[in-house]
Amino acid sequence: MDRTVSRWEPNARGRLEEAALELFEERGFGEVTVAEIAASASLAERTFFRHFADKREVLFWGQAELIAHLRQVLADSLDKKSPIDAVLAAIEAGAEALPDRREFARRRRAVIAANIELQEREALKLASMTSAISTTLVERGVDVTDARLAAEAGVGVFKVAYDRWIAAADGREFRPLVRRTFADLRTLMAAPASG
Amino acid sequence: MDRTVSRWEPNARGRLEEAALELFEERGFGEVTVAEIAASASLAERTFFRHFADKREVLFWGQAELIAHLRQVLADSLDKKSPIDAVLAAIEAGAEALPDRREFARRRRAVIAANIELQEREALKLASMTSAISTTLVERGVDVTDARLAAEAGVGVFKVAYDRWIAAADGREFRPLVRRTFADLRTLMAAPASG
Repeated sequence: MDRTVSRWEPNARGRLEEAALELFEERGFGEVTVAEIAASASLAERTFFRHFADKREVLFWGQAELIAHLRQVLADSLDKKSPIDAVLAAIEAGAEALPDRREFARRRRAVIAANIELQEREALKLASMTSAISTTLVERGVDVTDARLAAEAGVGVFKVAYDRWIAAADGREFRPLVRRTFADLRTLMAAPASG
Repeated sequence: MDRTVSRWEPNARGRLEEAALELFEERGFGEVTVAEIAASASLAERTFFRHFADKREVLFWGQAELIAHLRQVLADSLDKKSPIDAVLAAIEAGAEALPDRREFARRRRAVIAANIELQEREALKLASMTSAISTTLVERGVDVTDARLAAEAGVGVFKVAYDRWIAAADGREFRPLVRRTFADLRTLMAAPASG
């Protein structure tokens, strides 16, 4: 029996992600092969493809768990909160669940910003998050337009708060920035119409 | 001189788009080649590539003009309006400028929904629209967080209003739906915190 196939690899996804990020930083996403990423993480190429569908996915693997977590918190919050406040609670819980690795997040952001295929994947991942929130709200009886708008607002806040967190010079945490950014959007939307 | 190269082709982009949409509907995006799209539109393959960088772009070619238009209206509106109301004015003007082809929009939407590469391109195009709005606001002195949030809210409203327009059984126009959807978001965000 081939031990490289059956052997359990501790934290294979994390090791592949770190190796991939380093190689992408050094040479650019387009110049790096999956075989090189696997070799750099001391893993077999087939191990990579057991964990990720393609080369891009190595930078987005936390997404499915994040969405599952968001949906759970959202469903639980809807009994006691308005749709928009339930979305805020879910986005805050999602922020809390993300690994507290700001430096890693900064490096990842720079690699994504340098490659259009990665930007496309990221944009689609965020759209999937929006759809998941909207679907959960509709399943719980929220009007479809309200559900979609609450999901768009929530993911918009998530994106802006994430960038604030990455850019912050101090050690501010992500979760309080989500709440503050949500409050900023509320204030902005409440501004009286002028002109 | 080769007349097929130099000849002016009336509405080449629109003809290529219509031909591509039909072929994608019949056989799926992945099964259709650029050569086939061009042939179906009675144009040369190189004509396709004079107009579009790749096969996906044929479904997104109005985007650059839409963004230029949005930016212009936005910059003009900021003298008399709050950032969020200027964004609404820009999104409404964008809706007005889009061709009034709801049936075509429905077909295009179905083709995009069936292919992940097209979904990625669409998600990135919407993210580009968000960036363009945000950049314009920041250039005009709006606080960067307010600018990003106003842009997220505006593009979120655009997306939801677009889907309402496509789904509407009656002949409702896109522009009034933008204004109404913006009002819906305001109401939703203003709901008192509960729980």
